[in-house]
Amino acid sequence: MTADQAAPLTAVILAAGQGTRMKSPLPKVLHPLCGRPMLHYVVDAAFQAGAADVVVVVGHGRDEVSAQLASAFGDRVRTAVQETQRGTGDAVRCALPQLRPEADAVLLLCGDTPLLEAEELKALWNALSASSGPLAMLTMTLPDPTGYGRILRGADGQVLGIREHKDASPEERAITEVNPGVYVARTAFLREALTRLTTDNAQGELYLTDIVAQAATAGGTSALSTRDPGSLAGINDRAQLAAAEDVLHHRIADAWRRKGATIRTSARIDASVALDPDAIIEHGVVLRGATRIGAGAHIDVGSVLTDVVVAAGAVLKPYTVAQRSSIGEKAQIGPFSHLRPDSEIHDEAHIGNFVETKKTVVRRGAKANHLAYLGDGDIGEGANVGAGTIFCNYDGFRKHKTEIGPGAFIGSDSQLVAPIRIGAGAYVGTGTTVTRDVPDDALAIGRARQENKEGYASRLKGRLKIGK
Amino acid sequence: MTADQAAPLTAVILAAGQGTRMKSPLPKVLHPLCGRPMLHYVVDAAFQAGAADVVVVVGHGRDEVSAQLASAFGDRVRTAVQETQRGTGDAVRCALPQLRPEADAVLLLCGDTPLLEAEELKALWNALSASSGPLAMLTMTLPDPTGYGRILRGADGQVLGIREHKDASPEERAITEVNPGVYVARTAFLREALTRLTTDNAQGELYLTDIVAQAATAGGTSALSTRDPGSLAGINDRAQLAAAEDVLHHRIADAWRRKGATIRTSARIDASVALDPDAIIEHGVVLRGATRIGAGAHIDVGSVLTDVVVAAGAVLKPYTVAQRSSIGEKAQIGPFSHLRPDSEIHDEAHIGNFVETKKTVVRRGAKANHLAYLGDGDIGEGANVGAGTIFCNYDGFRKHKTEIGPGAFIGSDSQLVAPIRIGAGAYVGTGTTVTRDVPDDALAIGRARQENKEGYASRLKGRLKIGK
Amino acid sequence: MTADQAAPLTAVILAAGQGTRMKSPLPKVLHPLCGRPMLHYVVDAAFQAGAADVVVVVGHGRDEVSAQLASAFGDRVRTAVQETQRGTGDAVRCALPQLRPEADAVLLLCGDTPLLEAEELKALWNALSASSGPLAMLTMTLPDPTGYGRILRGADGQVLGIREHKDASPEERAITEVNPGVYVARTAFLREALTRLTTDNAQGELYLTDIVAQAATAGGTSALSTRDPGSLAGINDRAQLAAAEDVLHHRIADAWRRKGATIRTSARIDASVALDPDAIIEHGVVLRGATRIGAGAHIDVGSVLTDVVVAAGAVLKPYTVAQRSSIGEKAQIGPFSHLRPDSEIHDEAHIGNFVETKKTVVRRGAKANHLAYLGDGDIGEGANVGAGTIFCNYDGFRKHKTEIGPGAFIGSDSQLVAPIRIGAGAYVGTGTTVTRDVPDDALAIGRARQENKEGYASRLKGRLKIGK
Repeated sequence: MTADQAAPLTAVILAAGQGTRMKSPLPKVLHPLCGRPMLHYVVDAAFQAGAADVVVVVGHGRDEVSAQLASAFGDRVRTAVQETQRGTGDAVRCALPQLRPEADAVLLLCGDTPLLEAEELKALWNALSASSGPLAMLTMTLPDPTGYGRILRGADGQVLGIREHKDASPEERAITEVNPGVYVARTAFLREALTRLTTDNAQGELYLTDIVAQAATAGGTSALSTRDPGSLAGINDRAQLAAAEDVLHHRIADAWRRKGATIRTSARIDASVALDPDAIIEHGVVLRGATRIGAGAHIDVGSVLTDVVVAAGAVLKPYTVAQRSSIGEKAQIGPFSHLRPDSEIHDEAHIGNFVETKKTVVRRGAKANHLAYLGDGDIGEGANVGAGTIFCNYDGFRKHKTEIGPGAFIGSDSQLVAPIRIGAGAYVGTGTTVTRDVPDDALAIGRARQENKEGYASRLKGRLKIGK
Repeated sequence: MTADQAAPLTAVILAAGQGTRMKSPLPKVLHPLCGRPMLHYVVDAAFQAGAADVVVVVGHGRDEVSAQLASAFGDRVRTAVQETQRGTGDAVRCALPQLRPEADAVLLLCGDTPLLEAEELKALWNALSASSGPLAMLTMTLPDPTGYGRILRGADGQVLGIREHKDASPEERAITEVNPGVYVARTAFLREALTRLTTDNAQGELYLTDIVAQAATAGGTSALSTRDPGSLAGINDRAQLAAAEDVLHHRIADAWRRKGATIRTSARIDASVALDPDAIIEHGVVLRGATRIGAGAHIDVGSVLTDVVVAAGAVLKPYTVAQRSSIGEKAQIGPFSHLRPDSEIHDEAHIGNFVETKKTVVRRGAKANHLAYLGDGDIGEGANVGAGTIFCNYDGFRKHKTEIGPGAFIGSDSQLVAPIRIGAGAYVGTGTTVTRDVPDDALAIGRARQENKEGYASRLKGRLKIGK
Repeated sequence: MTADQAAPLTAVILAAGQGTRMKSPLPKVLHPLCGRPMLHYVVDAAFQAGAADVVVVVGHGRDEVSAQLASAFGDRVRTAVQETQRGTGDAVRCALPQLRPEADAVLLLCGDTPLLEAEELKALWNALSASSGPLAMLTMTLPDPTGYGRILRGADGQVLGIREHKDASPEERAITEVNPGVYVARTAFLREALTRLTTDNAQGELYLTDIVAQAATAGGTSALSTRDPGSLAGINDRAQLAAAEDVLHHRIADAWRRKGATIRTSARIDASVALDPDAIIEHGVVLRGATRIGAGAHIDVGSVLTDVVVAAGAVLKPYTVAQRSSIGEKAQIGPFSHLRPDSEIHDEAHIGNFVETKKTVVRRGAKANHLAYLGDGDIGEGANVGAGTIFCNYDGFRKHKTEIGPGAFIGSDSQLVAPIRIGAGAYVGTGTTVTRDVPDDALAIGRARQENKEGYASRLKGRLKIGK
């Protein structure tokens, strides 16, 4: 019988601890990695390994933790409350009432090990299914085992139990094979074993690890040595958090690379982002939230996109910063463009350097290539917005809308005082403050006539009494 | 006899494979690393190791591959076509007609191992020259040898042959010494051995590796264990490509560091770039193409330069982005400046934040420090271009030129409507739209007179009926 | 007796070498790492290990080195001059006259090993204190010991002496335990031993390492094997410098992380910077100089801050660049803002994209959200500065000041020609060039009236004779 054919598996994830070394008001398991709470990676791993349902034991910050779980997983994940922290054994006890009767085996995990891989959990479940014993556990061997529970083995190599670091003798502390805290147990055994835990130890707590000694006399423990101890390390402070985030960012990037994206090693792509083949993600790019990058799109150096949909073939030049916006096929953006929320840049439109858009539609082939503020606007197909143009959407009291017709040409340094409408094919002269609508095909102009005063520049310098 | 004194060496590089795991229409060996196709690094290594000429066996995407080779190496590299892929032995056979009669030895390489170092190939050639056998090969030892051909050795340690992974017995699969596919063979032996290959194996292909068993009965193989297995790894997907690019970027940077440049570890310098001593390249800088950085120039955080020549002592502040431009001695650029193609910034000139230049000459000591668009211009020595100035080079139909004389002062927020000429020492008043040429030393001014309406601001707020 | 209770310890740091492989006019030990000369890290380690005073032996570039030491450490560090380089033994001899009579032991260090950790030096001093011998030294074991002095040990494991690489026999060169050059010696022994050094060796120099052989016959050497050979590596070229800087940057970041800051791995925080808990430092951020980041402040991607004080809860969006400025609580800056020296952004003020400030106060709640140059200004509480506004602080000859009263509204694309004062609650119309003061609550306006010429746009296109 393989794991996939096994009777239902339930996962219990311990996530009640405070995590004081995080030095944070946020519960430890909610600290984000690549944009997601670390706990969510453990939940994912449990589901991917085959768990039919998941119970998370919560304690510190339980409301926040429960809310985050509900928002991400809905009712696929349930919680059990551990009121006071009396040890890992007590934590699992708290979860027992939540176990479904049909659950044949229980996968026991910690909420602070987000690098855990589902493949390894599957292998562990397979090991239990193939054995006649009541328990399977992972072990790992560390050069410096300080702090970890040591694996005690008999002369025949069988696992006899775990000795916590604080309870270990000098000889036991020399053991380098340790317990990462990942088990699959038969449910009946687990229920029974938990009733027998005692607080007769250095910390006066109920140790979950004591079930291993019980298993030794009940058919034995299947111990699997992990191939990657780093993936089982618990996160206890923000230095470990940063290191784990790096591992995850590399995993995410490598997965997209194998699907055909080109991603420089310094780019950072959050877990929630999706890329199409042949997308190119350059050095230092940061992609966050529900960002989607289309096939062959080129996201150049240092661009930062949050909840942005980029269509196929679009080109984002260096340092494009955008939030909650969309960019059409073959559109060109940047460098140094800022698309604020609700910017819709349509196919083949261009937004250039030092241009800000906000709640603005830029229609097919329209261009605003230099130094402009385009807020609350709608720019028609093929229109050209000159350098220095400002949509004066705010009068100090309210926001108003600017509409530009298709094919219109807005001369440089014009101000369009909203609410305003520039007609199709209209032409606004350089430096005009536009306060009234411009009809289709009309020329709007308004500027003082240039006067040249001969020789005045020299006189000016004299008057100011200083040269440069 | 050392390699350098040896009879001529020809290199044969296998580059016919499709590379399906790259998931790309581009042939695998053309995928770029640090701005160059990976194949070109292998060709370089062959030449540096002493190859007198190089034959590349092409197949998939042969036209593209051949064109890239011709463009980079001219007639120093020839190609041989492998019509259908019948194995590595067949590929080398296809190259035989291209071997020059005087070639005494043949260096056999794969086109997808760009990290290969010439020193190691030289050592291999030396090993062959020093031996009486017909073949020398590199070997490497890997913790996980899966997929590689295993090195079979006799009781006396002599190499007896190679067993491909797919053809290996369980005992043979336990061997961790493997074949990276790098050989030097005496030409006569190679020609002879290739005639004897068979397709009697798991893949039904002609294995080049079978020449090793033949060598065992013809004088033996000199096996050299590599000091850096990583440098021999073939690139099969874009995750491996990214990792290899990192290695190359570090090699490139370290080489410049040893010549006296200071380069932060996160900077990325392509293979085609050159630095003078004491150049300082800060965090996150990206240098591409034919970029040259002069002595003591300081390229600050995040600048992205493509085909830019920076003279000695120039200072580029953070986030300077430039393409195909030149920057003079002690010039100051940035932060957030954008030099588009054909910008010439002369000595001691300043281009400041949010300034874009395009096809514009900024002469010695001239300044444009803030928020400006300078397109199609020529700015005279010592001239000062105020904040918000726009060269209106485009009238919606054509591009025109703006000329500013030496020592002129352009007041803030002026628009210079091209074609236009501002005279030497002239002064343009703030906010002027300049549509006619300004004579030398003249003052040009054109703006509406400011009117102050007392108490109107409060009334305005009342009229709009909402406070803030 | 532990180290802390021991008789006074003096440190002697060798820093006289030229460092030719650095290829730099700057003396090697002054090359900066994370913003500080590498020598200063060694001095710090000596003090942290318990040295009561520190003598640095200077030679090449002695004036520069001495000046830097005095500026950083005042009279806590003294220098001794080595006129010509006659070996490390000669260098220590030069320091002897500077040793205080009460110094019971001397810690001997090299100025080019900035990664040295004080803990290890303390352990070494403890080892000497606990022993009856005259000398304690660190040793390390390297896979490739080329270039290092080898540790010679007797049959009983006792250290007998050091053999420099150039003087070593082939058998001695096979030894992989080497001398990193870190010792603690009893002062009386050291003084005596230094008188007995000879130049009878391959380099004709006085080797400090010869004191080890002398110690062997005077009570023996306590040899401590380092736990981190990398931390003892000397820096000889800029490739090693860059690698060491990376190690230090990671140490600095990890220390702040353990105190409760969140710092992405690609951020670079110099040694002189301080962070409060829950500060968030995003990808690619660079913090330099006397920068301080308040609790909960969020410094987003790629911001570069030099000598900037950021108060609690401030938000700096991507690519904020600032120098010698202050940012108040809950202020919002960026993206693409540039705060030049002497910018004071008060609590809850906003500076937005493409805005430059210089020597300007932006008071509580005031806003300048888009495309503006604010130089030499004072902006009152709650004032709003529109897009495209320019403070015309420079007339081509002198700089002048712009004052804006509380609650004033500056319409888009206005130019304020300094010296100028806009009154409290005043309103400046869009596109106005303000040359005279505006009274409180007044409306200032000055622009040409817009004229619409119907059908002219089409005629314009006709006249220019080309469509688009």
